[in-house]
Amino acid sequence: MAIIFQATASAPVNIAVIKYWGKRDTKLILPTNSSLSVTLDQDHLKSTTTSRADPSFEKDRLWLNGKEEEIKAGGRTATCIKEMKRLRKVEVEDKDPSAPTISKYPVHISSYNNFPTAAGLASSAAGFAALVSSLGALYALPVSPSTLSLIARQGSGSACRSLYGGYVAWEMGSSPTGEDSIAVQVAPQSHWPDIHALICVVSDDKKGTSSTSGMQRTVETSRLLEHRVAVVVPERMRDISAAIKARDFDTFARITMQDSNQFHAVALDTDPPIFYMNDVSKSIVAMITEYNRVAMEKTGKRKAAYTYDAGPNAVIYVKKENVKEVADMILYYFPDVKENFKDVFHLYSSQEMAGKLVDGYNAAVAKPWPKGAVKGLIHTKVGDGPRVLGDEESLLGPDGFPKTLA
Amino acid sequence: MAIIFQATASAPVNIAVIKYWGKRDTKLILPTNSSLSVTLDQDHLKSTTTSRADPSFEKDRLWLNGKEEEIKAGGRTATCIKEMKRLRKVEVEDKDPSAPTISKYPVHISSYNNFPTAAGLASSAAGFAALVSSLGALYALPVSPSTLSLIARQGSGSACRSLYGGYVAWEMGSSPTGEDSIAVQVAPQSHWPDIHALICVVSDDKKGTSSTSGMQRTVETSRLLEHRVAVVVPERMRDISAAIKARDFDTFARITMQDSNQFHAVALDTDPPIFYMNDVSKSIVAMITEYNRVAMEKTGKRKAAYTYDAGPNAVIYVKKENVKEVADMILYYFPDVKENFKDVFHLYSSQEMAGKLVDGYNAAVAKPWPKGAVKGLIHTKVGDGPRVLGDEESLLGPDGFPKTLA
Repeated sequence: MAIIFQATASAPVNIAVIKYWGKRDTKLILPTNSSLSVTLDQDHLKSTTTSRADPSFEKDRLWLNGKEEEIKAGGRTATCIKEMKRLRKVEVEDKDPSAPTISKYPVHISSYNNFPTAAGLASSAAGFAALVSSLGALYALPVSPSTLSLIARQGSGSACRSLYGGYVAWEMGSSPTGEDSIAVQVAPQSHWPDIHALICVVSDDKKGTSSTSGMQRTVETSRLLEHRVAVVVPERMRDISAAIKARDFDTFARITMQDSNQFHAVALDTDPPIFYMNDVSKSIVAMITEYNRVAMEKTGKRKAAYTYDAGPNAVIYVKKENVKEVADMILYYFPDVKENFKDVFHLYSSQEMAGKLVDGYNAAVAKPWPKGAVKGLIHTKVGDGPRVLGDEESLLGPDGFPKTLA
Repeated sequence: MAIIFQATASAPVNIAVIKYWGKRDTKLILPTNSSLSVTLDQDHLKSTTTSRADPSFEKDRLWLNGKEEEIKAGGRTATCIKEMKRLRKVEVEDKDPSAPTISKYPVHISSYNNFPTAAGLASSAAGFAALVSSLGALYALPVSPSTLSLIARQGSGSACRSLYGGYVAWEMGSSPTGEDSIAVQVAPQSHWPDIHALICVVSDDKKGTSSTSGMQRTVETSRLLEHRVAVVVPERMRDISAAIKARDFDTFARITMQDSNQFHAVALDTDPPIFYMNDVSKSIVAMITEYNRVAMEKTGKRKAAYTYDAGPNAVIYVKKENVKEVADMILYYFPDVKENFKDVFHLYSSQEMAGKLVDGYNAAVAKPWPKGAVKGLIHTKVGDGPRVLGDEESLLGPDGFPKTLA
């Protein structure tokens, strides 16, 4: 019986609370500043990848959601595969003469996302994390997630943060080779497990600026970015890490919102300016600001934090005990979202989903929006890091091609 | 025959190209940074004020648009009137014993704007400039507009810039008394007379944050403002002044747009964030960005500059020779605006007003907007400073009360 060299892994999405925006090296994807994220639960959002190495394959090939993607020579995917093969050779084959020399074999890779790629939900981060995780399992690499993260980083910067569960920092590093620009876990999911996330998928009329081109235009033209990078982010990285370790939600929320706003501020300070948030996004900001105002009046502490990546979608972090209040508020302003809300945590009994506001809340802070302004609502929570799955989860058939083609 | 001590003056609106945002002294209205504006033509937008001093009046009184406003003790209006009376005394009466001691008389003041106060068009700037100009004429003060600007500044910061026509800097000064925080003319209207302005009055659903409270929240919470104030604005003041002196529209336009964006960036970097621009404002940014892209591809130079104050309205500066192209573009995206456009410069023959785009323009940069997104379009140009008007323009009747009451 021939041995099949194959492994399947899944990896999570992560959403930054201190934002990555700007590269100091575009080829190696070395950032201008450190960043920090919360890893979201793979039970709700994940990328799954199967990799197989076989001497009979003609060349490295990749299928994404069942559709073959070209692996461009020198491109990001090719770089990740090449680096993983190199690690297999130096970490395993060179050290153990009995290990099979599978680093020489071409690979077939099949990858699926269980959420819409186009929804602006960091699909490339989960995708590259799943890619290096499945190759790491295939090659039986005796290395830490941090080592894998430096390879995932070269596929998509923020992918490096999806190599850990919980609360994850991407240390920018200082080496020109990028060897110290890696992800490290600030705290595991188990340290602070009751942080939930409500993701409002906001409708967007226009095709926005891609993050890759947008962030480099900011590096070239924003006069405020230099101050953010040199002064503000180092302080915030220190302070939010301490807040996570202390499970201090109020500080965590304050810094998360401030940093989201500052990222969009430097985007706006770019020439020509970049706008990712729209009027719907701004209504959600107003909504959370008012919710926190009421909470602070009562208890002196914030209860929710919005954050926006390079698009109009809102991710709202909130403690488990308050998540229903926030969901109620979203349903108040965007009542038709209930048609696109899979209530996986059973916040609502069936047919009972209705919007409402907490006592003392000023409803006039935002206007009611017409149908479709928020086109989906996803409820998830902090989750674990990449998982190696059994062969029953394989996305490749016995012939080494995807089981399902697009 | 009794001598009537009365004077009427009109003053213009000004729209900043380097924005004033943040006070270092809220009582004296001393700014955190210098600013620079273009004075707009009073033929289209102006505030007119008549002041009369009479010993028979019981107290100082003020009518705005025919409605009496309370003059609060220690308030901004009271401060301006008191300072003007003080100047009358020290500059005129103390020096010339034959001068009537009208500084002792109560004043009646009536003021009208010829444009909607609520449209977000710097009505308080024109209003306080007209107030000090009419009192300056009433009191026959032998002082420069810069001296008057120091008093107008204490009414409304940006009012000081409406004391000159043309291109006007408000030097922030360094004295704690504010004596050097004054307006100075960078260039008169006659130096560069062909700068036109198209003002898009954008519909706004919500009541925004007032500039007075908004800017102080920015001073207290924005981490980026400190860098703007210390590093960016001083460079831009120098560079845009040079551009105006050289009639270099390309540089003028670039800095104008960059500074508008940066002002809105520090507003967004405020906690909680402040948004003044809405999705319609952003469409106008996209429209001008594309218009300039086409122009730069053809000639290497920009042809228009947007700027936004603390609201969603766009002011577009453009050279006279290109103003019709920009109006055409506005009419393309906002076709119903023609119903609210008074074509004072006769860009269009009657019944011919239709939108169009320049060759090579990508129409998809913005979406067409439904009726009412832009509720008015005003065409004006760089203009002169305050004008002293004849008695036939008086807003006060022979009885010392407004001719027209609201």
